[in-house]
Amino acid sequence: MRFLGRGLALQLLVLLGVGSGQAVAQTPPMTAGPLVIEKQGSFFLGGRDETSTTLGPAKFAPKSGAITVDQVYVRYQTPPGADARPNVVLIHGCCLTGKTWETTPDGRMGWDEYFVRRGFSTYVIDQAWRGRSASDPSAINAVADGLQPPSTLPPIASSSHEGSWVLFRFGPKFGETFAGLQFPASAVSELWKQMVPDYAYALPKPNPTVPALAELAQRVGPSVLISHSQSGIYPFQTAALEGRNIAGIIAIEPAACPSATADMTPYKTIPVMVLFGDNTSSSPIWAAIVKSCRDYVEALGKAGGRAEMVVLPEIGVKGNSHMLMQDLNNLQIADLLVTWIGKTAR
Amino acid sequence: MRFLGRGLALQLLVLLGVGSGQAVAQTPPMTAGPLVIEKQGSFFLGGRDETSTTLGPAKFAPKSGAITVDQVYVRYQTPPGADARPNVVLIHGCCLTGKTWETTPDGRMGWDEYFVRRGFSTYVIDQAWRGRSASDPSAINAVADGLQPPSTLPPIASSSHEGSWVLFRFGPKFGETFAGLQFPASAVSELWKQMVPDYAYALPKPNPTVPALAELAQRVGPSVLISHSQSGIYPFQTAALEGRNIAGIIAIEPAACPSATADMTPYKTIPVMVLFGDNTSSSPIWAAIVKSCRDYVEALGKAGGRAEMVVLPEIGVKGNSHMLMQDLNNLQIADLLVTWIGKTAR
Repeated sequence: MRFLGRGLALQLLVLLGVGSGQAVAQTPPMTAGPLVIEKQGSFFLGGRDETSTTLGPAKFAPKSGAITVDQVYVRYQTPPGADARPNVVLIHGCCLTGKTWETTPDGRMGWDEYFVRRGFSTYVIDQAWRGRSASDPSAINAVADGLQPPSTLPPIASSSHEGSWVLFRFGPKFGETFAGLQFPASAVSELWKQMVPDYAYALPKPNPTVPALAELAQRVGPSVLISHSQSGIYPFQTAALEGRNIAGIIAIEPAACPSATADMTPYKTIPVMVLFGDNTSSSPIWAAIVKSCRDYVEALGKAGGRAEMVVLPEIGVKGNSHMLMQDLNNLQIADLLVTWIGKTAR
Repeated sequence: MRFLGRGLALQLLVLLGVGSGQAVAQTPPMTAGPLVIEKQGSFFLGGRDETSTTLGPAKFAPKSGAITVDQVYVRYQTPPGADARPNVVLIHGCCLTGKTWETTPDGRMGWDEYFVRRGFSTYVIDQAWRGRSASDPSAINAVADGLQPPSTLPPIASSSHEGSWVLFRFGPKFGETFAGLQFPASAVSELWKQMVPDYAYALPKPNPTVPALAELAQRVGPSVLISHSQSGIYPFQTAALEGRNIAGIIAIEPAACPSATADMTPYKTIPVMVLFGDNTSSSPIWAAIVKSCRDYVEALGKAGGRAEMVVLPEIGVKGNSHMLMQDLNNLQIADLLVTWIGKTAR
């Protein structure tokens, strides 16, 4: 049984301007005019000290000593009146950083600002060992110093333009676009600049980002965790660790959902939306993930949970890529999430 | 010959509440109340595509392909009326990211917001290969794949707590503080979380951040480049590369100044301030740098340039550390810079 009733589904269709020839969203233009910020700032979650003897060649510093790793960087903005709503936490995916949610490759407003304009305290993180969240160079320097063999080097992944193009479903082949693609492909070089090396394969499971998200929710209060791609499973793992103050989970194009045969207890009290863009069926990888997530949503519903599966073309919204927070209709999709949060969370 | 006359020097003293028993800054309380943002966002400068055959173990992506490196991440906020002033660009130092300038370790307002509240369009960067600016893992993965020997690994520097404590002049020894230290030492663990591995030693000179800064000034208009520590030399290198739209240079605790015997032509038309905190004479490294910078400022003045050397204790401001943008009197020091910019830049 789906959580959203037919009424809300229709409302979403209206909001997205589909289904009846409507071309505009039914929300006021939230992108114009100055932005008023009640409070903004940044801080870290988690982190542990470790002692290293291979800190490398810093000019004035010793090779041995303590460093702090596993912490997670968070930047936030709070508009006036945000107390009336849960917080929104934006959690990026593989080979990317919190930049994912900021100004789009073609220079339009990102979700980091739009959710603030819609009244939400908005938190943007960099996953552990990524972006402004420190990685640990000790293992690399130990090999450079001849203390360890090359086989001990950590796996570090960078995603190529060619591979990302297909994986992000811009088109069936590098340089080709799907008909009606919503991603601004002419600005794709700006997306490539967002991509960074990814140490996630070198980290324990769950990723240190997961307990950091639990810490964030305890610290800032009820929060909707919005994940993307690689981080898709993190909010579920966070809920399993500590469900308090998890006001909702929105998994956008998750690389994985929990198994349909998993213990549903941690998820039953938390509204869940799993959201995919278009053209998933053209990709064996994505087709399998969509099916697996659909099974999970169905199983959670049967177990008494409140879960919704949204595959955008199934509600008439066409052409969205894997990077739908950067697509041309990104704010309309954000509106869909805002509506869902208003109906379900807290 | 110093650029600032006696009048402004006295004004700075008054502003800092020193020299006559005054305890408060002569500026209105700029930290209270909501912040109004005309425009904010983020983008990248520079960047180049390269082809790699060692992109590592990304689960769904090929090992070979193109990636983009050397780009520089920039986040900015513009308040209403900023057109009346030059932009401010905040450039962090070694083993750190743009987080340097945000919320302080003990939770006070950082310069990234304070300069906006003082009316400046404020740009915060992550240096190339640091933070949200991608590094290139190809050389590391080539060793992991057995294609190259360990001697080809890039030098990566992390600064230890112990080494940083002394280098940042919190005290003469790790855990000991200088009398009257302005850095919030009880929150130092939050500073340690800001520190990240530094690839700068693996990069060409000038650092790719330098042409990126020139690009930024061309793109956004007249800009005061405010550097710190490792990046101290970058604005000077930027000016030598392309002086247009460099409205001023403020080098805060630079690791190096240009040589006093260098060609002064690139610097003569740009107002320059070099600023140091307290206790530099207790550190042979810092004492040598202060002397070298003093020689440069003097030589630039003799060559007809407009340069000012400010060593804070010499104007009665005591206890500032190397991380003076995070010190307890950080906003008073920012006020000093604002006054200097108002008098000199553009």
